[in-house]
Amino acid sequence: MANTTKGRTRKTGLPPGTLIHTGQRRMETPRITVIEYSKDTFRETEIKDVKECPILRDTPAVAWINVAGLHDVDLLRQIGDAFGIHRLVLEDILATDQRPKMEDYQSYLYTVFKMLSYDEEKRGVAAEQVSLILGPNFVISFQEREEKIFEPVRETIKLDKGVIRRSGPDYLVYALLDVVVDHYFLVLEKMGEAVDVLSDAVLIRPEPAVLRELHQLRRELLFLHRAIWPLREVIAGLSRRNTELVREGTAIYLRDVYDHTVQMMDTVDIYREMMAGAMDIYLSSVSNRLNQVMKVLTVIATIFIPLTFLAGVYGMNFKTFPELEWRWSYPAFWLVCVIVTVVMVVYFKRKKWT
Amino acid sequence: MANTTKGRTRKTGLPPGTLIHTGQRRMETPRITVIEYSKDTFRETEIKDVKECPILRDTPAVAWINVAGLHDVDLLRQIGDAFGIHRLVLEDILATDQRPKMEDYQSYLYTVFKMLSYDEEKRGVAAEQVSLILGPNFVISFQEREEKIFEPVRETIKLDKGVIRRSGPDYLVYALLDVVVDHYFLVLEKMGEAVDVLSDAVLIRPEPAVLRELHQLRRELLFLHRAIWPLREVIAGLSRRNTELVREGTAIYLRDVYDHTVQMMDTVDIYREMMAGAMDIYLSSVSNRLNQVMKVLTVIATIFIPLTFLAGVYGMNFKTFPELEWRWSYPAFWLVCVIVTVVMVVYFKRKKWT
Amino acid sequence: MANTTKGRTRKTGLPPGTLIHTGQRRMETPRITVIEYSKDTFRETEIKDVKECPILRDTPAVAWINVAGLHDVDLLRQIGDAFGIHRLVLEDILATDQRPKMEDYQSYLYTVFKMLSYDEEKRGVAAEQVSLILGPNFVISFQEREEKIFEPVRETIKLDKGVIRRSGPDYLVYALLDVVVDHYFLVLEKMGEAVDVLSDAVLIRPEPAVLRELHQLRRELLFLHRAIWPLREVIAGLSRRNTELVREGTAIYLRDVYDHTVQMMDTVDIYREMMAGAMDIYLSSVSNRLNQVMKVLTVIATIFIPLTFLAGVYGMNFKTFPELEWRWSYPAFWLVCVIVTVVMVVYFKRKKWT
Amino acid sequence: MANTTKGRTRKTGLPPGTLIHTGQRRMETPRITVIEYSKDTFRETEIKDVKECPILRDTPAVAWINVAGLHDVDLLRQIGDAFGIHRLVLEDILATDQRPKMEDYQSYLYTVFKMLSYDEEKRGVAAEQVSLILGPNFVISFQEREEKIFEPVRETIKLDKGVIRRSGPDYLVYALLDVVVDHYFLVLEKMGEAVDVLSDAVLIRPEPAVLRELHQLRRELLFLHRAIWPLREVIAGLSRRNTELVREGTAIYLRDVYDHTVQMMDTVDIYREMMAGAMDIYLSSVSNRLNQVMKVLTVIATIFIPLTFLAGVYGMNFKTFPELEWRWSYPAFWLVCVIVTVVMVVYFKRKKWT
Amino acid sequence: MANTTKGRTRKTGLPPGTLIHTGQRRMETPRITVIEYSKDTFRETEIKDVKECPILRDTPAVAWINVAGLHDVDLLRQIGDAFGIHRLVLEDILATDQRPKMEDYQSYLYTVFKMLSYDEEKRGVAAEQVSLILGPNFVISFQEREEKIFEPVRETIKLDKGVIRRSGPDYLVYALLDVVVDHYFLVLEKMGEAVDVLSDAVLIRPEPAVLRELHQLRRELLFLHRAIWPLREVIAGLSRRNTELVREGTAIYLRDVYDHTVQMMDTVDIYREMMAGAMDIYLSSVSNRLNQVMKVLTVIATIFIPLTFLAGVYGMNFKTFPELEWRWSYPAFWLVCVIVTVVMVVYFKRKKWT
Repeated sequence: MANTTKGRTRKTGLPPGTLIHTGQRRMETPRITVIEYSKDTFRETEIKDVKECPILRDTPAVAWINVAGLHDVDLLRQIGDAFGIHRLVLEDILATDQRPKMEDYQSYLYTVFKMLSYDEEKRGVAAEQVSLILGPNFVISFQEREEKIFEPVRETIKLDKGVIRRSGPDYLVYALLDVVVDHYFLVLEKMGEAVDVLSDAVLIRPEPAVLRELHQLRRELLFLHRAIWPLREVIAGLSRRNTELVREGTAIYLRDVYDHTVQMMDTVDIYREMMAGAMDIYLSSVSNRLNQVMKVLTVIATIFIPLTFLAGVYGMNFKTFPELEWRWSYPAFWLVCVIVTVVMVVYFKRKKWT
Repeated sequence: MANTTKGRTRKTGLPPGTLIHTGQRRMETPRITVIEYSKDTFRETEIKDVKECPILRDTPAVAWINVAGLHDVDLLRQIGDAFGIHRLVLEDILATDQRPKMEDYQSYLYTVFKMLSYDEEKRGVAAEQVSLILGPNFVISFQEREEKIFEPVRETIKLDKGVIRRSGPDYLVYALLDVVVDHYFLVLEKMGEAVDVLSDAVLIRPEPAVLRELHQLRRELLFLHRAIWPLREVIAGLSRRNTELVREGTAIYLRDVYDHTVQMMDTVDIYREMMAGAMDIYLSSVSNRLNQVMKVLTVIATIFIPLTFLAGVYGMNFKTFPELEWRWSYPAFWLVCVIVTVVMVVYFKRKKWT
Repeated sequence: MANTTKGRTRKTGLPPGTLIHTGQRRMETPRITVIEYSKDTFRETEIKDVKECPILRDTPAVAWINVAGLHDVDLLRQIGDAFGIHRLVLEDILATDQRPKMEDYQSYLYTVFKMLSYDEEKRGVAAEQVSLILGPNFVISFQEREEKIFEPVRETIKLDKGVIRRSGPDYLVYALLDVVVDHYFLVLEKMGEAVDVLSDAVLIRPEPAVLRELHQLRRELLFLHRAIWPLREVIAGLSRRNTELVREGTAIYLRDVYDHTVQMMDTVDIYREMMAGAMDIYLSSVSNRLNQVMKVLTVIATIFIPLTFLAGVYGMNFKTFPELEWRWSYPAFWLVCVIVTVVMVVYFKRKKWT
Repeated sequence: MANTTKGRTRKTGLPPGTLIHTGQRRMETPRITVIEYSKDTFRETEIKDVKECPILRDTPAVAWINVAGLHDVDLLRQIGDAFGIHRLVLEDILATDQRPKMEDYQSYLYTVFKMLSYDEEKRGVAAEQVSLILGPNFVISFQEREEKIFEPVRETIKLDKGVIRRSGPDYLVYALLDVVVDHYFLVLEKMGEAVDVLSDAVLIRPEPAVLRELHQLRRELLFLHRAIWPLREVIAGLSRRNTELVREGTAIYLRDVYDHTVQMMDTVDIYREMMAGAMDIYLSSVSNRLNQVMKVLTVIATIFIPLTFLAGVYGMNFKTFPELEWRWSYPAFWLVCVIVTVVMVVYFKRKKWT
Repeated sequence: MANTTKGRTRKTGLPPGTLIHTGQRRMETPRITVIEYSKDTFRETEIKDVKECPILRDTPAVAWINVAGLHDVDLLRQIGDAFGIHRLVLEDILATDQRPKMEDYQSYLYTVFKMLSYDEEKRGVAAEQVSLILGPNFVISFQEREEKIFEPVRETIKLDKGVIRRSGPDYLVYALLDVVVDHYFLVLEKMGEAVDVLSDAVLIRPEPAVLRELHQLRRELLFLHRAIWPLREVIAGLSRRNTELVREGTAIYLRDVYDHTVQMMDTVDIYREMMAGAMDIYLSSVSNRLNQVMKVLTVIATIFIPLTFLAGVYGMNFKTFPELEWRWSYPAFWLVCVIVTVVMVVYFKRKKWT
């Protein structure tokens, strides 16, 4: 996840603007869906050729073209030509290791960000790149593979829920961003659960495995932090409305998504601090365990060492050794042993060593 | 407390602006209290239906509408319609995990922040969301449940103390903010007590339980930090007076509350540094304890190991063993033991090991 | 020192602007001294009633009114009424836990900061709040109790040293600030001595008591940092001359005091880094000591354990035991012991363990 | 790598602007290559004397003069005179320890940065200084030695790929920067591999050698951070287009390279955090190992110490010693030994010490 | 070095602007050298009385007055009167603990900074304060004692090297700053050597002495950081040319010195990070050593403890003790010993404990 430079090196030495897909091929054939809608109309078509794609300069309708699958470089070039998109934008869409950013090309806005989801199997965060192009009356979205994530937006348009059918393409961009940010919250919640589990684990079983999980989680939180931070800037950039492509009414909605990202940053930061604290507790628990072990050794050794010495004394073979002859020597020896032991145990108890 | 994303996920996939209460239901029925006042008049009523609610466009009076309990979504929608409040604001009022913020909708200002109280039972900070809408001649406050916290403000108005009856709704907002910030100080004082207790505890009984409490406190201080920081921005935003809704006289008062928040930040930061220091002392105390134990082991073992060897020597069964025959061997043995012990104890004393 | 919220909670629930003295009562009766001076004149009087206080609108003279003792709330109110001072300013003067700040009320400037002194008995920094009000031709200073700190300024005025008699009240404010900042340097020097003492102590006697002193000092440095930082802002604010109350000539002098505060910040930061380093050395010294102890145990145990085993062997009672019969067995045993010991000591020496 | 002041001291005491080559001599003779190109023409020549160098004020062609090898100070001075370059710029070109920067001298822009490559043999990052001078229709590039790195750009021009032949010298600067930044990604990838290797190594073999490698890598990441940070500023400065030398179309391309540097910064920061985490794991692994060793000692010592005492007891030579006479004493002794051992092992198992 | 408040307290309570030399007296008598130069002329004189000092309002010549030795307060006052210098500037020149700063007094610029040199004997950085006053056609430099550091500048003027004779006094200020900054590089190089030495020392001999040196070096790097940071601001301030006293041509040169300071900051920061890393390695090395020692103890103890028990067993005096009678008991005993030892050594080897 952290090694974000893998695909990048494939491009070294090529002239700038060369279109190369640097991600993994995740779909068989790209799929292009076109949804046209206005206040009263709704039409959904799947097209094979970009030439079929409507460019509706003068109608009040909005067209949402969704491209799922990025490995067909020719297709991308056709779309770029049809909609007059800069070569560098196409290059960025194909390079799936982009940092979230928003770029204003006057006649259209280009936005790229990560869509996150929690992979239950690998128990990690999966990231996928989504690019959005906002034109005067169209939105083109590029996904690495077909995801169900934009389905609710499609439904909202189809069923004419909310204000989306009466709003422009900028509102559609907002709706898509909103649904993506909502998914971030799902990932964050999974993280929150892992944080809770590990906070307990460091106390109950301070083992190297827990330490590894802890570091894994910290790395994912760091990754999340890095993903949200520029996303925040992207949304802030959109809502600042330096462009005519974003209307004032939509800017208020975008500010709302912006607030969500700020809130997520806060949560991620709290999680990170909690995990830093858990690290401390882990280390403390480990050394606490060792202390317990060492104390037992100390107590047993400290009690028996003098006694063993005493037994050794009376095992000596001196010819002249008065105590050996005495009658009560042996019971006296045991008495001394018991007294020494009791004195030491009391001493240790008082010092709270056991 | 930290897991601020819990309720949020319930909303994933819904069209934006959908009103859903994401907090816990804390009251049976919402309660709406309306207090109308001007320089000479004071009237307090409890209403069931929003339609009864006075909208006093041209009178000099100020209306304070307090809504306690947020789970009745219909009620919220009616209030929104009656006062022309944006759907996103209503959504934010219902989502009880908002970050403190202030939004200017020209005809009214929307402010949301946390009201903190110290829960004696759970020994932790309890947070509740309060939303304020400041209109030209009204203030609407939304609480999650009915709290006595705004009671002093009600009293001040009723008994005509201070300048509140002669001031506009902006002063009422100030008064409400002031009383909330005063409660922050109460929470902070509780924290201060806990800080003092733990600062001593890490020295007296460096146990894992203390470490856990310490981390708990650090987390709460972090939470407090996170709550005050944006609150500060909110109040700064109000006092900057970019809007006509806040008069100049009130801005001076708001600046005063702003100073309080800055001061609280300072105190929280000092507490956090103190707890970081306490952490160091804790770890140091723990390892100091182990050192004590280890030193006792070392001293006892180091004294007895050579003596035991000596006793072992004279327990050997060699046929030719001159010392065993000597008369004073046994007393001489004890003499050697005493001398070795004394020499070692003196050595240890000089090295300051005991 | 750190618990700055103590008095604050007494005010919760009271209407804003209520005058309450939140500090400790430090004097019997407040004492008001009035010093009037111009280029040629100097008059010093002590007044009991504020009504006696001269308000000299049109004369070229400057009046310096010093109020020592703050617990008489009525007196404050009278002064406030006489000079037209805002209620919030009076409230801030009485609340002795203010953060240093400067507020511009057009007709006068309000400045509040801490006066620090080193308490030799308690071996800690003592802080006292000083408020200054700079009017067009007067300065009112409020102290918690009568301190000799402003005496040099009084002397300078009385003996007509420097340019103070030919300057306005803004220069008087500068002179008072300068004398306060000079006292900060005294406190800083005491801190510097403590820093030096502790830097040595952590090496010579790494004991828990030293650790506690170290943490105490770090806390005080943090406190100092917190006190100087906003003071710097205050003086910067004054010297920026957004107000007519501060003349250009005085601004140059204020910039000089500003430089002093920057320099103090630097020194405090260096002290803090040094104490952080001392902490490291302390921990390192402690573990070094334990290492020394452990090594002695190791060396002694490692030498004697094999020897004791050998002695044990020849203490066995086997019937068939050839060595026991040999003549030189006993001297040979000692020879083996000496050889083993020498070999081990050489080994340890080479490994640099002793 | 870190000791960036080595050559610098050679210059102390010389008047400013004195030309001295402070780097290592890396080539025999400097080599000057001139590539002239326009939309339709391409000419490549190698020159010995700067006077041969074309200065094409009025033709539409672009000249790219590449100077490889910097130790010939006279040559530099001639170039400086021919193109009217400031003495300080020449000084900077020769001082090969420059921090990346961009300077606008109105008639030309001066840019200096590091070209990085990964030295497989030394297993470290090798840095070389590249200076670029962008004039109205020429670009002069200075390299410490002849590197193949600019070869792809030469190819692109020669084969008329992309838009480079139809663009101005600013696009050539972009192309050169782009190829350099692409090489940074290669270095970053090597770093990423080392990060992965070390992340595993700290777990598998926590040895001092790994610690040293870890610190080495952290230092290189720090170096990389320091190299990229100002490079970012340089490219941002170029793309802000405060000068007429950079056209608008090229600024878009430069923004793209800027994005790459931001992304690299992110990756470097993630690597640095990962290595900080690896450090923690290393320390934790080391102490974990010691714990394992200590526990074995504890268990064996704790079991045998009481048993040895018992054996010592029955080795005593008391005359009156009833047990010695008993018939089953010896088997009973072994029975006791077995029971004690079993009890202890069970106790340790339950405490999870083994 | 760190205790920068020492001399300062001597001034507490004095009226502002009182001239007191707070540094150590470092020379017998102050020495004033005047160098006048223009494009064609050069004259060097040593004067005793300030009245001899030329003030050349209308000639094209530049006068450089160098004052070495600061303890003669009267002399300073005379210079101040002769050149119309503000009392606060004179005060700052005398107070040798100034933070580097630049102040614009319209008719002249005042600059103060530290000149650093490495004291080979004390093995530490020695700092001396240098003040510069830049007037329309003169530069006055104040040094604490006569240093050879400005000698190269004198030479450059005398021998008419570079452009200095054709430039104004602002270029002279640049030349002086340049030579001072060059000396910083010398100090930095010494630091770099110390950094290298210590980086090795922490690995080879992790002793408390090394730790102390390490902390000493970190403190000096911190001091250097603190000295360069404001110097950078000073030079940036000069090169921003808000004043007519600095010409545009000189600003370019100043920007060059500015770049040097930025580069020095980078190097200092890298050294600081390296020393932080060395600290980690030191601590790790120390604990590694202890681990080695502990492991030897563990291995020897673990091998011999069971063997000693066995020898103890056969030293028991039970009447009925079959093994004692057997013929091969004794060799069998040794066999068992060897087997136990071999098994344990193999076990330890496999666990990689030795």
